[in-house]
Amino acid sequence: MSNFGFPRMRLVNPYHVAYQEARSAVNAAAILENAVESSDLASAVADCTLVVGTTAVGHRELHHSLRRLEYGGRVLREHLNSGTAALLFGSEKFGLSNEDLAHCHWLLRIPTRDEHASMNLGQAVAICLYELSRDSRALRAKPDPVKPATAEQVERFSAMLIEALEHSGYVKDPASNSIRAKVRRVVRRLDMPARDSDMWHGMLRQLLWKLKQ
Amino acid sequence: MSNFGFPRMRLVNPYHVAYQEARSAVNAAAILENAVESSDLASAVADCTLVVGTTAVGHRELHHSLRRLEYGGRVLREHLNSGTAALLFGSEKFGLSNEDLAHCHWLLRIPTRDEHASMNLGQAVAICLYELSRDSRALRAKPDPVKPATAEQVERFSAMLIEALEHSGYVKDPASNSIRAKVRRVVRRLDMPARDSDMWHGMLRQLLWKLKQ
Repeated sequence: MSNFGFPRMRLVNPYHVAYQEARSAVNAAAILENAVESSDLASAVADCTLVVGTTAVGHRELHHSLRRLEYGGRVLREHLNSGTAALLFGSEKFGLSNEDLAHCHWLLRIPTRDEHASMNLGQAVAICLYELSRDSRALRAKPDPVKPATAEQVERFSAMLIEALEHSGYVKDPASNSIRAKVRRVVRRLDMPARDSDMWHGMLRQLLWKLKQ
Repeated sequence: MSNFGFPRMRLVNPYHVAYQEARSAVNAAAILENAVESSDLASAVADCTLVVGTTAVGHRELHHSLRRLEYGGRVLREHLNSGTAALLFGSEKFGLSNEDLAHCHWLLRIPTRDEHASMNLGQAVAICLYELSRDSRALRAKPDPVKPATAEQVERFSAMLIEALEHSGYVKDPASNSIRAKVRRVVRRLDMPARDSDMWHGMLRQLLWKLKQ
């Protein structure tokens, strides 16, 4: 909740042994401290204009419309622009009861494998809140492209490598243009970034210096 | 991992006390049983054609390109169509070391609040795997729209409610058209679903029967 900026936790009839011993993660103490307890669900969600339950579906016959998190998250986000919403999670073992579900406008489902739909509670909460704060525009926000080395930088690398290979005996016939062309081709395919060109130059120069001794 | 269909876990130099006592979630035993241990990162990722590290950023100066999960997840997914990839998570306390990061092609960041970037390990894994299996087409896959009640169904409801209100004394002047119009308007605004019309009819009929006695 703290990671994604959802500070308001409400607990309905919590198991007090576990609740009082709960320790919050680093930086998240305020969420536990400010959590509000209620003895029943109706009062916990009283001020909300939208109440959404979460479910792993499965055995229960559903009387609600069920939305996948991708779509339901968007509907929730849009609602939050102008209203208040509660996102309900049941106990780890049993989920929300049918009585709890009757308070919900609709239900949300995290798109898991059918064979393994039941989720860890903390992970389910984290995924839902990630989806709510997910920025679909970030899909297109590519990182700065890597600036590729210029032809001159690549050629400097190739030339030094060829010279080193001649000194090492890898190139047996210094007159052979075909081996030189082959080396140039494999160097070209390395797709060297411009920023690494100087370091490569330094490494090759040192190797060459040693080879020439 | 099991929820989202990622069965292959590799552990680099795990802390054996914790590892041997680890109990998997229901249905996920196979993942722990089939986990492969390595003593170093290089051999754990040896067969992968893409190695992506995760980071909460923060104190470390980064030498890698850093991608938000929304975009990086897409790149990873596209890579998985034709290649193998490793997604690395560091220890809960320290994350990945600089030495670990040197094995990575690029880094992935879950878009948390700047004030609270450090995440629970299990939740971070769950969110990344959710993003990888997320279906952006599901954004548009709206649930079946609720079929609204027909004008006839709404009118049946209004008429019975008006009759009940007359019997109850709420409508004091049965000749008043304005109160009837007002009731019709508030009923219309309820946006009653067609499927609920018969149940409303039954409830009102019973109320009316009792009121007439």
